[in-house]
Amino acid sequence: MIFDLVLENGTIITMDSQNQILENHCIAIKDGMIQAIFPVDSLTYETAEKIDASNCIIIPGLINMHSHLPMTYFRGLADDLPLNIWLQQYIWPLEAKLINPQFVYDATLHSAAEMIKNGISTANDMYFCMNSIADACSKVGLRVFISEALIDNEQTGNDGTNAIGKRIIELKEEYKDNPLIDFTLAPHSIYACSENTLKNCAKVAGENDFIVHTHLSETAEEVENCLKEHKLSPVEYLQKIGLLDVQGIFAHGVWINEKEMDILAEKGNSSIAICTESNLKLSSGFAPIKKYQEKGINICLGTDGVASNNNLDLLVEMSVTAKLHKALNNDPTLLPAKDAFALVTINAAKALGKEKELGSLEIGKIADLAVVSLQELENNPLYNPYSLLVYAINHNSIRDMIIQGKIVMRNRQLLFVDEQHILEKANYYKKMILKPL
Amino acid sequence: MIFDLVLENGTIITMDSQNQILENHCIAIKDGMIQAIFPVDSLTYETAEKIDASNCIIIPGLINMHSHLPMTYFRGLADDLPLNIWLQQYIWPLEAKLINPQFVYDATLHSAAEMIKNGISTANDMYFCMNSIADACSKVGLRVFISEALIDNEQTGNDGTNAIGKRIIELKEEYKDNPLIDFTLAPHSIYACSENTLKNCAKVAGENDFIVHTHLSETAEEVENCLKEHKLSPVEYLQKIGLLDVQGIFAHGVWINEKEMDILAEKGNSSIAICTESNLKLSSGFAPIKKYQEKGINICLGTDGVASNNNLDLLVEMSVTAKLHKALNNDPTLLPAKDAFALVTINAAKALGKEKELGSLEIGKIADLAVVSLQELENNPLYNPYSLLVYAINHNSIRDMIIQGKIVMRNRQLLFVDEQHILEKANYYKKMILKPL
Repeated sequence: MIFDLVLENGTIITMDSQNQILENHCIAIKDGMIQAIFPVDSLTYETAEKIDASNCIIIPGLINMHSHLPMTYFRGLADDLPLNIWLQQYIWPLEAKLINPQFVYDATLHSAAEMIKNGISTANDMYFCMNSIADACSKVGLRVFISEALIDNEQTGNDGTNAIGKRIIELKEEYKDNPLIDFTLAPHSIYACSENTLKNCAKVAGENDFIVHTHLSETAEEVENCLKEHKLSPVEYLQKIGLLDVQGIFAHGVWINEKEMDILAEKGNSSIAICTESNLKLSSGFAPIKKYQEKGINICLGTDGVASNNNLDLLVEMSVTAKLHKALNNDPTLLPAKDAFALVTINAAKALGKEKELGSLEIGKIADLAVVSLQELENNPLYNPYSLLVYAINHNSIRDMIIQGKIVMRNRQLLFVDEQHILEKANYYKKMILKPL
Repeated sequence: MIFDLVLENGTIITMDSQNQILENHCIAIKDGMIQAIFPVDSLTYETAEKIDASNCIIIPGLINMHSHLPMTYFRGLADDLPLNIWLQQYIWPLEAKLINPQFVYDATLHSAAEMIKNGISTANDMYFCMNSIADACSKVGLRVFISEALIDNEQTGNDGTNAIGKRIIELKEEYKDNPLIDFTLAPHSIYACSENTLKNCAKVAGENDFIVHTHLSETAEEVENCLKEHKLSPVEYLQKIGLLDVQGIFAHGVWINEKEMDILAEKGNSSIAICTESNLKLSSGFAPIKKYQEKGINICLGTDGVASNNNLDLLVEMSVTAKLHKALNNDPTLLPAKDAFALVTINAAKALGKEKELGSLEIGKIADLAVVSLQELENNPLYNPYSLLVYAINHNSIRDMIIQGKIVMRNRQLLFVDEQHILEKANYYKKMILKPL
């Protein structure tokens, strides 16, 4: 066999079930898949392309489990404000005015490029204009699970679920030859959808085997409102509606109590995508990670949109999460580095139902991976690669990115987009955004 | 006048008392000082050297208010452990075995270089072998306030204060022509020093106008022990001893109560150097920043040593601090970006008694500054430079560093040290460290 690409002589952090670390190994890729993993000089081979990974570690591409890719141009526009003022005075009016397919395409090109430069190979996104997101991510080379946020239109009482369900089926067909693109169903949240809409979502997701991606229990206020309106906690309410019978990714999960966790654990279909930095910055609170772990609920991490974070740095997200929960639980042994790294790799793949394809470096899996240079001062000395990845590294050390077997970044140069052009677009939209303010 | 260096056409974040932001301005430097700040094209001048700062912001060099520069080689050696095991089984035995002037010089060269690459122009350090630290920082070009941690030798009962006091006077004389080097007096902590030693420190500091740098109330346990042993809270104890009558920099300050804050505020000589990430990682707790602010106590930030952080990234330290305290206080308006940036600039200069020389960009101040490139995707669009600096930026955007008017890093290349050589040293010491383990 002639391989498409071989990464030679790196230290491979496999994240396989034995957490193997393979020093001086090579990874051979063909047709987007990992075909072989072998010690240096143990195999003679032909390959179309090579990457020298000596003095590098090779990690699974990071998986960002909750994002709003097209919010790029709102980054830093209105910080340090209460959530309601931020949303009502800035974000929503701007979105109402500006969002169109071109805006979404341009903004997504920017954030998808940024994610790749940060070591992210997959995003699980929620926004509007699904085609634009699919096309922009395809252009850059980012794997993406796309969804259209379903928000009830109170004026017409229109339940858009069936229309979006149909649209997802069409889009899955339209992009069926594009291995980077997949779709989920995204009722925005309990507070933005009627009971009827949520029920319909559960039905449509069940019939079509869609993953459901929704915001859940981000703030104490929304939990109170749910209790008031539905006489049930948010998780009990979702259970009643049937949304725990389908595979679910619940973003934030800050205010979920133990009784609710027992329900989630028993059902076994849901993962929590925690957005630590967004929750801190908007003062939403602290997700109960330790309890989730004790209950055996799958947890992973997301950056949220840049309007609330304000970056797409999943490495920092992981680092802050690992440190924060030690202090919150008065236990420096909680979330050790290896477990923290699982949050952005194999746990995330499980949440997407793709643990056989993504999230670890093993023969037969999709070749989504990052080559991390050890040249920077902060990466030395290196005693433990998990410690390096969680506590010391900067995203600048992500040297090369391979997604679906294709090199999309090499020596920190993106290969399929022009960064200068992206920056010009950002400046163009900035002027447009500042006009109505 | 012929200037030594002019930074042309940048956006200057002055951090002066009016928090002026000057767009399209130049900074002219001569003899290590800022001689002029003026709009582009408003002045004709001659200069020996120029830096084009267009599409850049120019900020005061960051000030790292608590570090242990020579701990570099212990980075990531033993993470996710309880503090006492970490110290007693790893750090202390290794220090006892390995610390010597050459080790300290080499390790400091590494961390001082790393700090400069992270935008830091000044460190306030505590360790051993003061000459080695002075020489390594001078070599790299980092400004440093050096101290020797004074730990009582229980076997001899020897109080080393007078010896160290004398040594500081000698060193101040030895390095008097080196504007980068200064010294402070550092009793390690209440728990590592006898009452007699601390009293003597207060006396020696008072007589010689030394700043005192010490660890204070990092863990709940040390506070309990102080209460048990001295029948006083740590701050009351320091007051009794006289250590609040001299200018003090107290590292950590996690467990200081309101009564203690009132004492600190009334005395007005002390600043708290908070080490947020170290306190999280070692699960020491959360410093009461909001209360410090309410009481008018000067606060600033430190990275702590890399053995407990594990990086020297003061930008991330600031970002995490700004976000964390919003969530802890359920107030998204707390520590807005402008105030957070003051923690690593002008507040830190005040803590060092150098607010007339450092911490802001004004005519007559020392030229310690960083040129930040806006080229990276995560820096765009830019609406508010404080937001950028606190919530979005990565240290990789620190393009040039000028310290004492001298360019020490240009286009991310350090000018006075060979990074490759530093990395080789790190590898050499790594092997030495792994041997006895």
